[in-house]
Amino acid sequence: MRVVILGADGYLGWPTAMNFSAGGHQVVAVDNYLRRDLCRRHDVESLFIPPNLHERARIWKDVSGLSIDVRIGDCCDYHFLSYLFREFSPEAIVHYAEQPSAPYSMLNHAAASLTLRNNLQATQNVAWAVYENCPRCHIIKLGTMGVYGTPNIDIEEGWIEIEHKGRRDRFLFPRQASSFYHTTKIQDTDMLWFYVRTWGLRVTDLQQGPVYGIGTDETEMDQRLGTTFNYDEIFGTVLNRFVVQAVAGVPLTIYGKGGQTRGYINIRDTIRCVGLAMENPPAEGELRIFNQVTETFTVNELAEKVVKVGRERGYGVEVSHIENPRVEKEEHYYNPVYSGLRELGLTPCLLTDEVLHGMFAVVERHSDRIEPNRILRGIKWR
Amino acid sequence: MRVVILGADGYLGWPTAMNFSAGGHQVVAVDNYLRRDLCRRHDVESLFIPPNLHERARIWKDVSGLSIDVRIGDCCDYHFLSYLFREFSPEAIVHYAEQPSAPYSMLNHAAASLTLRNNLQATQNVAWAVYENCPRCHIIKLGTMGVYGTPNIDIEEGWIEIEHKGRRDRFLFPRQASSFYHTTKIQDTDMLWFYVRTWGLRVTDLQQGPVYGIGTDETEMDQRLGTTFNYDEIFGTVLNRFVVQAVAGVPLTIYGKGGQTRGYINIRDTIRCVGLAMENPPAEGELRIFNQVTETFTVNELAEKVVKVGRERGYGVEVSHIENPRVEKEEHYYNPVYSGLRELGLTPCLLTDEVLHGMFAVVERHSDRIEPNRILRGIKWR
Repeated sequence: MRVVILGADGYLGWPTAMNFSAGGHQVVAVDNYLRRDLCRRHDVESLFIPPNLHERARIWKDVSGLSIDVRIGDCCDYHFLSYLFREFSPEAIVHYAEQPSAPYSMLNHAAASLTLRNNLQATQNVAWAVYENCPRCHIIKLGTMGVYGTPNIDIEEGWIEIEHKGRRDRFLFPRQASSFYHTTKIQDTDMLWFYVRTWGLRVTDLQQGPVYGIGTDETEMDQRLGTTFNYDEIFGTVLNRFVVQAVAGVPLTIYGKGGQTRGYINIRDTIRCVGLAMENPPAEGELRIFNQVTETFTVNELAEKVVKVGRERGYGVEVSHIENPRVEKEEHYYNPVYSGLRELGLTPCLLTDEVLHGMFAVVERHSDRIEPNRILRGIKWR
Repeated sequence: MRVVILGADGYLGWPTAMNFSAGGHQVVAVDNYLRRDLCRRHDVESLFIPPNLHERARIWKDVSGLSIDVRIGDCCDYHFLSYLFREFSPEAIVHYAEQPSAPYSMLNHAAASLTLRNNLQATQNVAWAVYENCPRCHIIKLGTMGVYGTPNIDIEEGWIEIEHKGRRDRFLFPRQASSFYHTTKIQDTDMLWFYVRTWGLRVTDLQQGPVYGIGTDETEMDQRLGTTFNYDEIFGTVLNRFVVQAVAGVPLTIYGKGGQTRGYINIRDTIRCVGLAMENPPAEGELRIFNQVTETFTVNELAEKVVKVGRERGYGVEVSHIENPRVEKEEHYYNPVYSGLRELGLTPCLLTDEVLHGMFAVVERHSDRIEPNRILRGIKWR
């Protein structure tokens, strides 16, 4: 299949590009290095800094014999995107090209405004460029479970049938997110849903939980093929950060009571889910939504797991409850449905001690690169 | 009260500015002439072209003895907006500063992108500039009934309690709009709701139906104080366009079957509703939503009323059903609640024959300015 991956230099983008290339697809990898630039500006760079995207593609070619076509450009530049789609005529587009950090989106006006512009203009451009150049192309957009917030009702996979005063209709599941970044993911779904209804586009929206893990089959083929791995408060996801804190001898920082429950997913499963979505496209005029998580944990449960495995490896891991910088419930009902991707064939890679030992082993190889001052930055929601 | 009106040069903005000034408020009127510029570029200018905003304020001063402070600037320019709020310290902000045309938002990629950027960046800037400079200030944002689309259940005033699998919670009423412009109004509500929850802002969101009418108490004080009046397919609302078509001897153009039902409101009531919202602010941390309409009609019913009054005035008014350029249901259930503003004291000015005769009289005074080629432009949703 001809696939364009937008945001292909990122934590998920690069492993996806390699995985699809290994699977026999023709891959165009697109990025504008926004994430790298922001990490450098804010001094929160990855545990190891991967080669640039052209270089990564050359290494991939050396290792696998397969080609990935690289284009450096901004998805907010409509001409760039539209020209690419016309030239390459993709059958699927994986859209990771959004600013992905909740704390970054709360940093100040400039960061919030960048998040708004980048995330919504990129998504609007994708919809228009598909409509004008390859209208049957399947758009796979990464969303987030964070769009739902923590409602007091069960979270369905994107849609809900509402009965009200004796009448019924089906709607997008109600969403209210707990950061501005997550709010842009509500907004991009609404935008795509409008264009799906109006133009008959085919869209899959993957509402993903926080991702953890470092290795995939392809990143493990050669150390130079490793993916970006942030362990800081801004771009690092919670479990990845905890493992680095454990190795660095810094207490695991839990925001408030730690009863916040979320659905999580291993990076290997992310890649597989995106692949399953691609292999099973929705109909024209369909917005299909999956909740892309494999199990739920409270933050306290994640910390306990890291403490256990860390101590097995000889670290004196401590836990520290700090004042919650976010505005969120610390104890709440949480019961999401996430059966759709299993029905498509996902066999999840769950969070076992073995998986955690594997993460520790990679972090330990790079432990000289851990800079403890990068871990917490004190970004507050108000 | 110290009030900033954003988009004060527009159809609703200028009458609001004068009305609040007449009511003893201190008014700062802000605009960047975007609407005028777009109308000129697309050759769909108003039935009469009002003087510029500085000139309007001078005329208002001559006629009423009252001052309106004018600032020409772009709400997407955060420095401009933030500086103004710091300097003036408003107690209320009326936010009309969005690109208001559904057909314009469907014209091409550039127009859709302008609508996205302008409407969401302006709203984000308002939220941030209030938070950073005058956090207790009441933001009154104009929304649209169009956000709800035409659901098969009754439309509540912004909120709905959902019972699902034996549990309950309260959510924003589900929304799915029928144009990209209307979709930006879903997105701006989600954005404001996020900042209301996180920062405790006070926001009123007025989900308004299509507005009709020309005159308000203040515009009628002097002909030079009249408001913008578009009669074209892009910026003209349906009833205003029908009256101009009747006077110009052009058949009233109904899209498809004409069973599309919407809630409508007279411009006099719009001004009154915004005033009532301002006089009765919500609590801190409250997003209050009103459905700002006074009665519902199908397009066919509106056409019948214009035919009747037009024929009484001697016009041979005809009706023409044309292929619907939009993607919308032409026959559907529609039952919105709109009691909140009446409870605050609104006594509606309904669509009587007398009101229509008044509209005809004003249009007739300017009938030499009607350019029939401006009425239809053939903008299609796909």
